[in-house]
Amino acid sequence: MTAHPQPNPEAGAAVKAADRAHVFHSWSAQELIDPLAVAGAEGSYFWDYDGKRYLDFTSGLVFTNIGYQHPKVVAAIQEQAARMTTFAPAFAVEARSEAARLIAERTPGDLDKIFFTNGGADAVEHAVRMARLHTGRPKVLSAYRSYHGGTQQAVNITGDPRRWPSDSGAAGVVHFWAPFLYRSRFYAETEEQECARALEHLETTIAFEGPSTIAAVVLETIPGTAGIMVPPPGYLAGVRELCDKYGIVFILDEVMAGFGRTGRWFAADHFDVVPDLMTFAKGVNSGYVPLGGVAISAEIAETFARRPYPGGLTYSGHPLACAAAVATIRAMEEEGVVENARRLGEQVVGPGLRALAERHPSVGDVRGVGMFWALELVKDRETREPLVPYNAAGEANAPMAAFASAAKSYGLWPFLNMNRTHVVPPCTVTEEELKEGLAALDAALSVADEYVAA
Amino acid sequence: MTAHPQPNPEAGAAVKAADRAHVFHSWSAQELIDPLAVAGAEGSYFWDYDGKRYLDFTSGLVFTNIGYQHPKVVAAIQEQAARMTTFAPAFAVEARSEAARLIAERTPGDLDKIFFTNGGADAVEHAVRMARLHTGRPKVLSAYRSYHGGTQQAVNITGDPRRWPSDSGAAGVVHFWAPFLYRSRFYAETEEQECARALEHLETTIAFEGPSTIAAVVLETIPGTAGIMVPPPGYLAGVRELCDKYGIVFILDEVMAGFGRTGRWFAADHFDVVPDLMTFAKGVNSGYVPLGGVAISAEIAETFARRPYPGGLTYSGHPLACAAAVATIRAMEEEGVVENARRLGEQVVGPGLRALAERHPSVGDVRGVGMFWALELVKDRETREPLVPYNAAGEANAPMAAFASAAKSYGLWPFLNMNRTHVVPPCTVTEEELKEGLAALDAALSVADEYVAA
Repeated sequence: MTAHPQPNPEAGAAVKAADRAHVFHSWSAQELIDPLAVAGAEGSYFWDYDGKRYLDFTSGLVFTNIGYQHPKVVAAIQEQAARMTTFAPAFAVEARSEAARLIAERTPGDLDKIFFTNGGADAVEHAVRMARLHTGRPKVLSAYRSYHGGTQQAVNITGDPRRWPSDSGAAGVVHFWAPFLYRSRFYAETEEQECARALEHLETTIAFEGPSTIAAVVLETIPGTAGIMVPPPGYLAGVRELCDKYGIVFILDEVMAGFGRTGRWFAADHFDVVPDLMTFAKGVNSGYVPLGGVAISAEIAETFARRPYPGGLTYSGHPLACAAAVATIRAMEEEGVVENARRLGEQVVGPGLRALAERHPSVGDVRGVGMFWALELVKDRETREPLVPYNAAGEANAPMAAFASAAKSYGLWPFLNMNRTHVVPPCTVTEEELKEGLAALDAALSVADEYVAA
Repeated sequence: MTAHPQPNPEAGAAVKAADRAHVFHSWSAQELIDPLAVAGAEGSYFWDYDGKRYLDFTSGLVFTNIGYQHPKVVAAIQEQAARMTTFAPAFAVEARSEAARLIAERTPGDLDKIFFTNGGADAVEHAVRMARLHTGRPKVLSAYRSYHGGTQQAVNITGDPRRWPSDSGAAGVVHFWAPFLYRSRFYAETEEQECARALEHLETTIAFEGPSTIAAVVLETIPGTAGIMVPPPGYLAGVRELCDKYGIVFILDEVMAGFGRTGRWFAADHFDVVPDLMTFAKGVNSGYVPLGGVAISAEIAETFARRPYPGGLTYSGHPLACAAAVATIRAMEEEGVVENARRLGEQVVGPGLRALAERHPSVGDVRGVGMFWALELVKDRETREPLVPYNAAGEANAPMAAFASAAKSYGLWPFLNMNRTHVVPPCTVTEEELKEGLAALDAALSVADEYVAA
């Protein structure tokens, strides 16, 4: 950490004032939020205009896998800006070609054609369209406890409460339950049982919805914001088999889990499974320039070889975004960023969080891999009652707010979702930084412990 | 034009090869396209790897309003990349605050809150969601002959054939006819008649769909890709009145027409009309970094003051994209880019295209404003039969392909849609460049003339 933030509260006040006057924020009641004005960021840290520095255990919204202001990626953006910052999608452009090549080299199996989008939501929108047109079938099956993006189709596929206000009911989406032993919907007691029953549940759902009506099964390889539920061994391979059996397109959403987050280039690599379509965004260039996309199998690409794919966007394969992806992938390769996430996940985060769980009765479950971990906070370890109710807001969410406020007071910016805190620092994080963050979590969890049932 | 492209066919071949191997292109049958490899671009020109230079009468996909590689915008991107290339949306960040302020200063009326998206499609998606939640009503009315974006909701609102393969039928979208005297759906003979009948048609549609079921009327202020049909005086004001009468949200889509394209900051400024929501993208930063958004009225912002707006995206208000918008808007202001578009539209493009129409029997209609013009090519000026059928492809589209090929041979890259070519150069274009382009069009139209009925 080399940057030394200089306090400048007047500048911060001006930034904040213009924000409150003119910026309409995502997922928020505009007058009930109080956005922190951020002055700068580097590596695993950011700081405000008072000079207060935070260790970022959120990677933004889990996208700065390479940390803030990586010098190689910044330089690549500057160089591409000088050469060709933008160009229309119907042309062949060096940065676009090279990004597609580098991504295709890393995606599993024959996912070798890359359709670029601006982010994860439109990647999911287009993957679903490709599946519907490839199969000629209307329905999409997706999981409860999932997030797939904020546009209308993507949010309808989503399985968390952000879907509710936009749920169009008849949008051809059916939700099912994916495996999650800690809160099993299948009355399972072992991972093997959970896996077998989850597959049986999916196959029954397919049977009763009608296999001939189902275009795609969409899953996050490891669900992210919904709780980082690493699927049991055999589950994704089982879904792959069901999709093959019924002619269904298998879409894996790696928008959050991809590009090193789990200690592999893609989370699918942990499970030796190859989907037909794979969505990505975030880590592909650490969000330095908006970029997402769909990696497409040879079979589905063939469907659109001589018949037009009816979808597109002005900034598909944006040169500046693609140049940032090229630099990010190369830097991750050169600096062993994926290996760093794997090694420190195994050696530091996993053991560190399990040690916290032993000391803090509010920690009900620890799970994850790489730099992708969740702590489930509970009122009671036996009943597993969440520390706050599902989708709690306001006073009902006070215990989580108190935990977050404590973490921030110790210099840690935590990721929160419902009754969970996720540990999702940049994949470039160091062992020292992780220990600093774990110590702050340790202190903040003492606040959560106060809400545990006596 | 200072750049001197150096031929480098080997490099071009490598870019092309990687493109064909790995890039999946928008709106295309992948094996039926042959993307030109582009080596560089500056101002109103771009060039390929053989050193062949093209005057760009397309502004990419009508987004490089400030031309390619504007030095002030390139420098701003480089500076912001060095300072803070990315940050999560829940914070107040200088570039985001400043972009919102500069946009809000220019949007009409009280459209003073800015929700940032990645592009035009998601801007439309979110505007429609805001309208539905604000009114509590499900339906959206939009026009045939329109384009509103490629994601599922946006493409369903679209009124051109790109909608068909994704049309979900029951998506709560109803299409109506907007005024277009040249191909009147109302048997009108004057602009006044067309305007009055189009308003009557819209009000009847509202009555028969049920006013209490209609959340929004969505219109491109001046429809773009669908044909640059400048609405007759009074039409948009009439729609505004109907929306007020029935409690319907009026959404103007300025993704293509906004930010100087029509010779005003927004096309709505021509008509003194203030919508409730206005979408933008493209020209806001000339597509140098992906950015779009929705400008929101005070009344609709109030709906989400203490109740969360259920929508968002990881890159909402992306700092690099916002810094590009700040620099673009400032440079446009300093250099009189909007005035340039207005002046040269009136003095050069309009008269020049009308002169071409006099010489070329294939030109059936000339219409437009600022740097936003369409030539309608026809087989017969009397019957107005289009030079190619609606949505023609392959052999049926041969006349337009021959015209385009001729234009390119004369060093002009033309914008094509169905039987039209649009003249949509950068708003920074010079009189000399326009004359060069008009001369190329003149030559190319002689090819189109060959298909005119004898």
